[in-house]
Amino acid sequence: MKPLGPIPLGFETIDGQLAVGGHTAIALAEQAGTTPLFVYSRAMLERRVADLRAAMPARLGINYAIKANPFAPVLQLMSGLVDGFDIASGGELAIAQAAGIDPARISFAGPGKRDTELEAAIAAGVTLNVESAGELRRAFAIGERLGVTPKLALRVNPDFELRGSGMKMGGGAKPFGIDQQEIPALATELIAAGAEWRGLHIFTGSQSLDTGAIIEAQANVLTLADQLAQAIGAAVPKLNMGGGFGVPYFANDTPVDLGAIGAALHERFADLPESLAETDLCIELGRYLVGEAGVYLTRILDRKVSHGETYLVTDGGLHHQLAASGNFGTVVRRNYPLAIANRFTAQPDEEVNVVGCLCTPLDRLADKAHLPRSDVGDIVAVFCAGAYGATASPSAFLGQGPAAEMLV
Amino acid sequence: MKPLGPIPLGFETIDGQLAVGGHTAIALAEQAGTTPLFVYSRAMLERRVADLRAAMPARLGINYAIKANPFAPVLQLMSGLVDGFDIASGGELAIAQAAGIDPARISFAGPGKRDTELEAAIAAGVTLNVESAGELRRAFAIGERLGVTPKLALRVNPDFELRGSGMKMGGGAKPFGIDQQEIPALATELIAAGAEWRGLHIFTGSQSLDTGAIIEAQANVLTLADQLAQAIGAAVPKLNMGGGFGVPYFANDTPVDLGAIGAALHERFADLPESLAETDLCIELGRYLVGEAGVYLTRILDRKVSHGETYLVTDGGLHHQLAASGNFGTVVRRNYPLAIANRFTAQPDEEVNVVGCLCTPLDRLADKAHLPRSDVGDIVAVFCAGAYGATASPSAFLGQGPAAEMLV
Repeated sequence: MKPLGPIPLGFETIDGQLAVGGHTAIALAEQAGTTPLFVYSRAMLERRVADLRAAMPARLGINYAIKANPFAPVLQLMSGLVDGFDIASGGELAIAQAAGIDPARISFAGPGKRDTELEAAIAAGVTLNVESAGELRRAFAIGERLGVTPKLALRVNPDFELRGSGMKMGGGAKPFGIDQQEIPALATELIAAGAEWRGLHIFTGSQSLDTGAIIEAQANVLTLADQLAQAIGAAVPKLNMGGGFGVPYFANDTPVDLGAIGAALHERFADLPESLAETDLCIELGRYLVGEAGVYLTRILDRKVSHGETYLVTDGGLHHQLAASGNFGTVVRRNYPLAIANRFTAQPDEEVNVVGCLCTPLDRLADKAHLPRSDVGDIVAVFCAGAYGATASPSAFLGQGPAAEMLV
Repeated sequence: MKPLGPIPLGFETIDGQLAVGGHTAIALAEQAGTTPLFVYSRAMLERRVADLRAAMPARLGINYAIKANPFAPVLQLMSGLVDGFDIASGGELAIAQAAGIDPARISFAGPGKRDTELEAAIAAGVTLNVESAGELRRAFAIGERLGVTPKLALRVNPDFELRGSGMKMGGGAKPFGIDQQEIPALATELIAAGAEWRGLHIFTGSQSLDTGAIIEAQANVLTLADQLAQAIGAAVPKLNMGGGFGVPYFANDTPVDLGAIGAALHERFADLPESLAETDLCIELGRYLVGEAGVYLTRILDRKVSHGETYLVTDGGLHHQLAASGNFGTVVRRNYPLAIANRFTAQPDEEVNVVGCLCTPLDRLADKAHLPRSDVGDIVAVFCAGAYGATASPSAFLGQGPAAEMLV
C-alpha cells in the first residue's frame, strides 16, 4: 500500500458521494455530458481569498497569477476577489482581456517577451515587469513608436532564494529578472527616459510549504526593496513581493501557516522604512489560490487483474494530469489525493492501481492505493487539480484533446 | 561545460547554415512566417524506412505508430512508405482517416478504449488489439449492435520485457494487454463468438538502444506466439511483434544496429514454426521512424548575463519541447543535441544556457552548452524533435499555443 495525498478541506458529501456546489460527482458528469472533467468550486475559491484577507494586513494587495488556471469563469470570479493579475505571455493578456479584466490591473512578467507581446501590453496599459536591459530598451522603442508612455517595473533577480521552494527563482545565476546589483542604474535610465516608473518585482520561488522560509523571504524582499530604493534615489510606487505559498499534494505535506505569515507581515508593515511608506505592496499567488479548489473527475472504463494486481483504467490520464501522473517519469512517483467520487464515504477495502487511458506506462494516477471496491462506470476524483492541470498537461497527446471544465 | 547530444546524420549545410530540404534555417523560418517551428525532413523519413527495408527480411511488415508524430503531411508521406498504422485513440483514428489512410491498414491498441471509440473503429473496419476480457465482450456487443463483424487481435502482456527499454511494457503486472496465461481461453471465446480472428499483438517496451536486448525480445515474441498458437489450436493470421528501437538523444548514446537485428530476424524467419508459417509478421515503430527527422527552430529573443552566466532566451520552450527541457524536473537533466542553426558550421567559442520564454526555471533547452557566439535574432535548433515533440508537450501552458509545423 502506498499512501494517498491529503484531500483538501471544503468538499461536500451528498448521499455518500463527493459533491461540489451542491451537485454530486455523478450529477456533475451528467451536466458536463462527458468525462473527464475539471470541476472548480466557487465557494472554495472565495473562502481561500477570504482567509488570506483575514490573515494579511489590509494594506497588502493580492494578485492572481493566471498561469495557474486561466479558465474564463475562474478569471471572472477572481476579478471580483483579488486586486491585480499577473500574466506571463501575450496569449494570457488576450485571455485576461477576453474575461473583461481591466489591463490597468495587470502586470506582465516573463523572460522571453516578443516585440508583438510588448506592443500589445504597452498599448493596453499593462505594467511590464522588465527582465533585462535589452527588454527595457525594446520597451522604450516600442512606447515611442506607439506614442504611449510605457508603464515599467523592474524584475529583480535577488541574491537570496525562497528556501524549500519547489522552484527557486533567486539566489545566483538565473534567466529571470535583472541581477540586483544592476537595478539602480537601469531604474535611473528608465526614469530618465520618461517611462512611467512602476517599481519592483521580486519573486523568490514557488510551491514552498515552509512557513518560516516564506516569512524570511518576505522580510528579505522588503529589506532589498528599501536598499534598492535608496540606491535609485526614488520612491518605489509598487512592490510585488512574489508568492511561493505551496499547496500540500502528498502524504505528510502540511499546509503553510497563514496566521504566522500574516502576523510577521503585520509586524513588518508597522515599521516600514521611509522609502516604502507610500508603496503599493502586493503578493502574487497562483497555485495557492486555485490549486485545492479543483477536482478532476474521470470515469472507470475497465477493471482488470494482471499478475494479481488490480488495475482501474480510466478515461482520463496524464494528458490532463501530468503532475499527478509523475511528469513523464519522476524517480519516485508519489500519489496525489484521489478517491472514488461516487463512493466517497465508503470504507477502503482493496488495493488498486489507477491508470489513465493512454498507451504508456507513465500514465498512472495512483499506485497501490487503498480504496473502496469500485467498478466500471464509477468516477475517480483526483484532487488538487485546480492549478497547472488543464493547461500544464499535453492535452493533444495520443489524439486525446482537452477535458471539459466547469465552475460551480 | 555539459555535453550536447549527438546531432543526427542527414541534415544539410548551406552557406554555413543548417538546412533541410534545400532550405536554410532562416529561409524556413521566413517561409513559416513565425518561430518556433518544427521542420520534418522528407528525405530523412524516406531514408529511414529504406534503411529498415534493406536490413529486415522482406516478409516483415513495418507499421508506423502515429502517436509519435500525427502531423497530416507526415502521415500522408508515411502512407506510401509503410505497410500499416497503429493508433491509440479514437482521436488518432479521426486524424488517420482525415489523412486518407485506409482503415483496413490500421490497428488500435490502448488500455482505456471508450465505447464510442470501439464503435468508430469497428464500424470503419479497424483491427482492435483487445486489452482485457471486459473490452473483448464490449467489442462483441458493439459489433452485434452495429451488424459488423469486429476484427479482433489480442494484446498479450508477456512474462518477459524488453531489457534496457525506456518504458517497459511486459514482464509482470501491467495495465496493458492480457496476461499470456489467459490468452488461449479468450482467443477461443473470440473465435467461437464469430469475430474475425486477427492474431496477436506483443509489445515489450520502447526506446531501447540495446541491440542485443531487441534481438532477444523479438526471439521471445516469436517463441511465445508459437506457444500461444498451439494452445489456441488455431493459426495466427497476424503477429505484431512490437517495436522498441530507440533513438540517441544524449551524449554517449549510440544507435541500434539495424544490420544485426535484421540478420537475427532473417535467421529466425528461415526457420519459423509451423504455427507461424503463414502469419503476417510486422513490427511497429514510432519514434525510430520520425524522431531524428525533425528539428525545432526557435529564435533568440534576449541575451543576458546573470552572475557571470550567459543566457540565451528563446521564443520557444518546454511547451513544445517538454522532453528536451527535462520533463518538468528530472533529477539529472541532460542536454539534447542543439545548435545555433544559422551559424551551424561556426566553431563553438562560448558557454551558454539556452532557455525558453516561459516564466519557470524548468524551461531549459541546454545547460552550459559550448556554442558559437550568437545574438538576438539568431535561430536555435533542437534536434531529435520529430517524435513526441509537438503533441507530447503542454502547448497551451502559459497561454502560448502550438508551434508551426512543416514537412520539407
